[in-house]
Amino acid sequence: MNYCSNCGSKVSREIPEGDNRHRFVCANCDEIHYHNPNIVVGCVTSWEGRVLLCRRAIEPRVGFWTMPSGYLEIGESTEQGAARESAEEAGIDVQIGNLLSLVSIPQIGQIHMIYLGQLNTPEFLAGEESLEVKFFSENEIPWDDLAFPTVRLALEHFFADRSRGEFTLHSEVIRRPETGSNKQ
Amino acid sequence: MNYCSNCGSKVSREIPEGDNRHRFVCANCDEIHYHNPNIVVGCVTSWEGRVLLCRRAIEPRVGFWTMPSGYLEIGESTEQGAARESAEEAGIDVQIGNLLSLVSIPQIGQIHMIYLGQLNTPEFLAGEESLEVKFFSENEIPWDDLAFPTVRLALEHFFADRSRGEFTLHSEVIRRPETGSNKQ
Repeated sequence: MNYCSNCGSKVSREIPEGDNRHRFVCANCDEIHYHNPNIVVGCVTSWEGRVLLCRRAIEPRVGFWTMPSGYLEIGESTEQGAARESAEEAGIDVQIGNLLSLVSIPQIGQIHMIYLGQLNTPEFLAGEESLEVKFFSENEIPWDDLAFPTVRLALEHFFADRSRGEFTLHSEVIRRPETGSNKQ
Repeated sequence: MNYCSNCGSKVSREIPEGDNRHRFVCANCDEIHYHNPNIVVGCVTSWEGRVLLCRRAIEPRVGFWTMPSGYLEIGESTEQGAARESAEEAGIDVQIGNLLSLVSIPQIGQIHMIYLGQLNTPEFLAGEESLEVKFFSENEIPWDDLAFPTVRLALEHFFADRSRGEFTLHSEVIRRPETGSNKQ
């Protein structure tokens, strides 16, 4: 951040009065600009025992596999965001269930929330951000070609919980993302 | 947003190519400015059966009661954020447990995540944002003087789950916040 988005003046980085963190502050209009973590929502959708994955058509990690996921938008609930991303990236009409995986990635300011999803109809279609969309049984999952560590975590929890017969929320922190920016 | 935070030029509101939502876009440097929901983290901390609440010293809702909570910062996990807010507002050293309440408030772009907390020591101290800090048994809770609908939801779930003998995650959407901006 170089300029105040409110008045267009140069901003400086300082600790505002009553705060204990550096923020971008405008000396002209007194605006304090906060930057906070973003939420990535997605879901592990299954159909007759198989799990839907998309092969990414966009950077980062083009050609690698992920469940449908992306940034939550203002105006939607976390469940709505997960359903929208699934519709956009995989063309599916999914019913969002319980939260399966909650992962904080402090270094890049992201919180990932991956839900369980059930298909209403077995129709799917690769969206603009996907090269292809495919259903995988557990032993077909392309573990070495997953796009992000968060994808692996969610899939591992999904299959472990399914074999236990009970799905629960798994809450974790990734301290050092293994793959670049981890942007989705 | 009026000016580009990158180059200081005037921004316009349009739908970027490949997108389906209006964003603030800079015609000079091509920067697209995304605004996404914020996360509010907090926790319901109990000590010997009583629950800790803070009476707010700041707007909005000065004088009303809330559990410690506030915006998640970049660089921390959701659990760390909940512990930090508890330390800042109530001076407590809390051990963060399971996620109790997840509330989406789409209209104001907020996602609230309220954890269960256990005190390590029964010491507390009202922080700068609190007029007072107090422990309440279930029948002492000031239900009519709670600061936000999310506070009521988390407390209701806490006491209902405790009497059932099992805490679970409660996921909800507030479509129309009852109290103003609901900013915390």
